[in-house]
Amino acid sequence: MDHSSPLTDTRPLKTYCHRRLNFLESKFSLHEMLNEMSEFKELKSNPHRDFYNVRKVDTHIHAAACMNQKHLLRFIKHTYQTEPDRTVAEKWGRKITLRQVFDSLHMDPYDLTVDSLDVHAGRQTFHRFDKFNSKYNPVGASELRDLYLKTENYLGGEYFARMVKEVARELEESKYQYSEPRLSIYGRSPKEWPNLARWFIQHKVYSPNMRWIIQVPRIYDIFRSKKLLPSFGKMLENIFLPLFEATINPQDHRELHLFLKYVTGFDSVDDESKHSDHMFSDKSPSPEIWTSEQNPPYSYYLYYMYANIMVLNNLRRERGLSTFLFRPHCGEAGSITHLVSAFLTADNISHGLLLKKSPVLQYLYYLAQIPIAMSPLSNNSLFLEYSKNPLREFLHKGLHVSLSTDDPMQFHYTKEALMEEYAIAAQVWKLSTCDLCEIARNSVLQSGLSHQEKQKFLGQNYYKEGPEGNDIRKTNVAQIRMAFRYETLCNELSFLSDAMKSEEITALIHWNQRQLYTGPHF
Amino acid sequence: MDHSSPLTDTRPLKTYCHRRLNFLESKFSLHEMLNEMSEFKELKSNPHRDFYNVRKVDTHIHAAACMNQKHLLRFIKHTYQTEPDRTVAEKWGRKITLRQVFDSLHMDPYDLTVDSLDVHAGRQTFHRFDKFNSKYNPVGASELRDLYLKTENYLGGEYFARMVKEVARELEESKYQYSEPRLSIYGRSPKEWPNLARWFIQHKVYSPNMRWIIQVPRIYDIFRSKKLLPSFGKMLENIFLPLFEATINPQDHRELHLFLKYVTGFDSVDDESKHSDHMFSDKSPSPEIWTSEQNPPYSYYLYYMYANIMVLNNLRRERGLSTFLFRPHCGEAGSITHLVSAFLTADNISHGLLLKKSPVLQYLYYLAQIPIAMSPLSNNSLFLEYSKNPLREFLHKGLHVSLSTDDPMQFHYTKEALMEEYAIAAQVWKLSTCDLCEIARNSVLQSGLSHQEKQKFLGQNYYKEGPEGNDIRKTNVAQIRMAFRYETLCNELSFLSDAMKSEEITALIHWNQRQLYTGPHF
Repeated sequence: MDHSSPLTDTRPLKTYCHRRLNFLESKFSLHEMLNEMSEFKELKSNPHRDFYNVRKVDTHIHAAACMNQKHLLRFIKHTYQTEPDRTVAEKWGRKITLRQVFDSLHMDPYDLTVDSLDVHAGRQTFHRFDKFNSKYNPVGASELRDLYLKTENYLGGEYFARMVKEVARELEESKYQYSEPRLSIYGRSPKEWPNLARWFIQHKVYSPNMRWIIQVPRIYDIFRSKKLLPSFGKMLENIFLPLFEATINPQDHRELHLFLKYVTGFDSVDDESKHSDHMFSDKSPSPEIWTSEQNPPYSYYLYYMYANIMVLNNLRRERGLSTFLFRPHCGEAGSITHLVSAFLTADNISHGLLLKKSPVLQYLYYLAQIPIAMSPLSNNSLFLEYSKNPLREFLHKGLHVSLSTDDPMQFHYTKEALMEEYAIAAQVWKLSTCDLCEIARNSVLQSGLSHQEKQKFLGQNYYKEGPEGNDIRKTNVAQIRMAFRYETLCNELSFLSDAMKSEEITALIHWNQRQLYTGPHF
Repeated sequence: MDHSSPLTDTRPLKTYCHRRLNFLESKFSLHEMLNEMSEFKELKSNPHRDFYNVRKVDTHIHAAACMNQKHLLRFIKHTYQTEPDRTVAEKWGRKITLRQVFDSLHMDPYDLTVDSLDVHAGRQTFHRFDKFNSKYNPVGASELRDLYLKTENYLGGEYFARMVKEVARELEESKYQYSEPRLSIYGRSPKEWPNLARWFIQHKVYSPNMRWIIQVPRIYDIFRSKKLLPSFGKMLENIFLPLFEATINPQDHRELHLFLKYVTGFDSVDDESKHSDHMFSDKSPSPEIWTSEQNPPYSYYLYYMYANIMVLNNLRRERGLSTFLFRPHCGEAGSITHLVSAFLTADNISHGLLLKKSPVLQYLYYLAQIPIAMSPLSNNSLFLEYSKNPLREFLHKGLHVSLSTDDPMQFHYTKEALMEEYAIAAQVWKLSTCDLCEIARNSVLQSGLSHQEKQKFLGQNYYKEGPEGNDIRKTNVAQIRMAFRYETLCNELSFLSDAMKSEEITALIHWNQRQLYTGPHF
């Protein structure tokens, strides 16, 4: 779209990566033809473990849309039936009851349906992220979004907490499903953190089947234009300073300190197709002097989140506290260069759709085994038809992909959103049980679950490479598959390192390095 | 494949029908572009009714596969945990306990998984109906099929009845879902009917959310070669004579008489791609003298089932008893001419995939609004990839299609098979809420539910044509849609009747009639 990186645009390199990726795909097809039945035989003789009782993590899901549309509808009706006269908001000093909220919207909750609720994405949202975002407002009313889907409101976010807890109970009952919901920190004020922590602690939102991720929307420009923020630096300060303080002095920030135990990472979110005119370079203004109303580009956001998280992690590690992963949305839409930014800064990414368009980046993500949480049903409603989704192709080549729901409220029909996601992928792409269990294993690996949990769910040696790291009794992934993946990756890496010794390639790499350092955008 | 009907093969007629069908499809596209938002607006202002609480009938499902694979697995484990020492079979006069059954299979049910159960259709079943049929044997063992999935065995079919009742309880809880499971009558012996009725009555299998259909497998040749039957006529007699007797003299057949109240129709089932050398004509041997080991062709089966059901219905109607619909499997595979046989004999059909290949028949099925129960997930595993399934196209043109599961045990992943079917169709084909509710309405219309139930679920005047027959408060189908369908069909019919007056068409029809009566296969 804009300034494409010279490194990923060199023609011989593109050809090379394209060919290697084709080779990887063909090699998997061959593996499948030869070993499909042997893999299934291995699984059939694996006692007590099948696709239903391997652990699966929903690696990308927004808390505000983690319930399905029918669930939200039922909850709204229930509150109206049980407590219509409760004060739920305050406007210009006047207290407003639930009944009054619905009266002012001219609506009787008994008549409310999923159609009038209108939170589900339809054909109208395709390539319209703006329309999609407005779907977060039930019945198109921001009052209901504030009341039911926010952590900060007159009720202290009680309704939202109750719904999230209902979702958590369903996960706990399912026993084998986990999820990593995103909660928002905007960076408008340093009080957001203590407020969010208080919501979490007071409503006891904790669940053993959930790990929390903080999403930071890239909307500095909106806050700046409303004069809520003087500079981008202030936004970063509001996001990160409370965390440094809670890390250095946990006693004074008990709730936040406790909440952070269950937070495992950061996400960076917004419409990637929004364009920024600024190009990030060593001449870019530093955050404190970024006072213009213009939004910084994706790369600028990513770099400064990464830099802050890294420093924070070092401090926390020193003090024996938990650390955070950086797991931004990336490659859902917009410029391909976002994938370069994330390659350099992120632990793993959500979406990665646009890797489809860059063989060099796709090959790099493969070689580095950077985890990708994909959501084909979300893409199907927003950016890419299901049949064109590259998930199957990425999986076959050996990229580290998992399946996730993104927004069950907007995209899914059944009560079990993650199972719906797996079922549709399995049906449309005719995935084998071994494929499905490999995706499930990937999801646990790339999640924020602890070392102990991963040992319990995947096996003692899960962190080792190849078949040695796989306990089929827990993962139901055939050792034949694991051996194939490991051998293929080792071959690819040794092939590259051999090639490094040959002059031709060395020259190519030197040329690229020169390009990289003369015209970089980092 | 073989003897194609001259009527459906006339070239000008093919061209004509092809063009009319194209026209119907384009007309719907136009309707969608112009009225999509108006339809949705109608639905949004329709109180209390949405896709989740409109009635849906699973119009085609085999009882022996009506539970999902995980359900069957759980049930098997449960029986082993609670009653391992119960006698469950008898072999050569020796009583065998459940424990002994599993011992003889060298298997501990604790270790059993959906993989080792191996009842799910995979890539191996595509175009292999034989492999698919063997999937009905859990762990590949016919002992377990007999014990868990049959109505006649040492336990009197108790296990099967218990599982079916568990499925029924789930439907009743869901409140809005109904299903029409098929139970088998083979025609080997006249005792099959009283046995099946006893199974139904003794185990109290009745559920308000289920209506029963009797499926007759087209496997005369197998029984004949095993010398279980002397002629095809004897098979028909075993199937129909007990019904005539129970109709004439209900007192002497109380259980069967009671059971028949809940049976709403007949199905004819088997692999349609199996070929028969015989061509049905007025020179074909009548059933009593059909003593050869050869299987009669599809048309022969259909004709004689139809003829018997018609006579039986007349008798029952006279006596004020319920009547039966004829709802054969048709057009799933094999010769296109099957669709001609069903057009002439059936009330509605299951599958109808091959209408895709015959514009004349497709147009006829449209004009006559013959209901078609489609199962795209079943087709996806057996005969046609999901993306190539014609359901969306048929729906758009205005054919009377519903969605059904066929065999949840073999094809589905989630607990809610019918919802999985709707969800995948909605996602892959981007169906609107109005589309989904139209399919659901069709499913109730084409089901064996009673007039009173249809009035309750669809509205007082459901049997009337056009918007007058639609109660949006019950169906959630927009009146705009209903008006479009009605107007389109009326136009099409009046267009035809106008054309009848023009000489050219009359000549064409005369020519066709001549062909039909000189070279028919009926």
